[in-house]
Amino acid sequence: MTALRLYTYFRSSAAYRVRIALNLKGLEYAAVPVHLLRGGGEQHAESFANLNPARLLPVLEDGAATITQSLAIIEYLEETHPAPPLLPAEAAARARVRALALSIACDIHPLNNLRVLRYLKSACDRDDAQREEWARHWIREGFDALERQLAGSARTGTYCHGETPSLADCCLVPQMANAQRVHLPLDGYPTLRRIHENCTRLSAFAAAAPAAQPDAE
Amino acid sequence: MTALRLYTYFRSSAAYRVRIALNLKGLEYAAVPVHLLRGGGEQHAESFANLNPARLLPVLEDGAATITQSLAIIEYLEETHPAPPLLPAEAAARARVRALALSIACDIHPLNNLRVLRYLKSACDRDDAQREEWARHWIREGFDALERQLAGSARTGTYCHGETPSLADCCLVPQMANAQRVHLPLDGYPTLRRIHENCTRLSAFAAAAPAAQPDAE
Repeated sequence: MTALRLYTYFRSSAAYRVRIALNLKGLEYAAVPVHLLRGGGEQHAESFANLNPARLLPVLEDGAATITQSLAIIEYLEETHPAPPLLPAEAAARARVRALALSIACDIHPLNNLRVLRYLKSACDRDDAQREEWARHWIREGFDALERQLAGSARTGTYCHGETPSLADCCLVPQMANAQRVHLPLDGYPTLRRIHENCTRLSAFAAAAPAAQPDAE
Repeated sequence: MTALRLYTYFRSSAAYRVRIALNLKGLEYAAVPVHLLRGGGEQHAESFANLNPARLLPVLEDGAATITQSLAIIEYLEETHPAPPLLPAEAAARARVRALALSIACDIHPLNNLRVLRYLKSACDRDDAQREEWARHWIREGFDALERQLAGSARTGTYCHGETPSLADCCLVPQMANAQRVHLPLDGYPTLRRIHENCTRLSAFAAAAPAAQPDAE
């Protein structure tokens, strides 16, 4: 087996997703920390841009293969290390899990990541309180829909889909951490909170948490 | 074969991606138009929210299955109608195509869609010119990275990946249309322009274009 190397930052929620997936699959990996704040951000170094021109985390190296985008990385791990599966077997169920994951990865997270919050300050004169409200707004929009989808489906179980953690849970848990960081009240999301609690009881999730990383501050 | 029904809006670029994929696979479908502007937006009707609580397009119905999120829909079509494939066979190549698609679907498009541009006006007082510059900024950031990734890889061919159109092309072509709509100069993106031209020569792409839809205005 070739060595896996993950370029990560303890607080990057996209990297957090991949750390959970690696742990759930019991895969060893070397963590290569990339500090997103220090010196304007190590992701802007030319050496990192050669690895990933988008200058974003995470990046996975598997031997000669360099893979970007957290969901592409997790799908890759699913194909190269199928057990335990992070997607169900049947096509419509797989689509449900992928849609739940994408509703976080496309509709919530991109609006609240570091580069957007920075641009809101530099180009739109938004102060810290306004930027936090911006973040809360989009998480609220997304969580309102997600709570309704999860609460309204018989396929929701201990986790987002049934009784084993999936790609959707890999996305939900980091997003819940972000919600707490911007002080979004979570009372209206009992299903999200229940699933989040069930996940964080698992060592794969606990070991992937920001505070448990070697580069945590 | 069960009938496929696609909830779509001619100008929705996420719906546009799925229309391309359906056409590339030669699948017949019934288009159900959802007007995103009329009367504050038909996606906000309770009947539509029951179908998709996120109130976003597209939605695909395949018999009893209701699938949301454009990339989850295309992966579902790939699994239920494998030929012609929109993903290559080998895992690292599949990851490359998915990462290219996600770099558009996560890093560019979510920052420029209708609800975000509306919120920039209502909550951040941005006028039309400022909102167009906001859109250009994020497309530029994403296209700069994408051009470098595509131009620097021997795996880039007539299309984003080799000699057949893939999931990545389904995402690139609608994003190019969006770039043109906000008047982003495309001189710096010769590879994106070349691939875009190659794609739009194919009838599957041409028939999926906004202007070719029954609900086009």
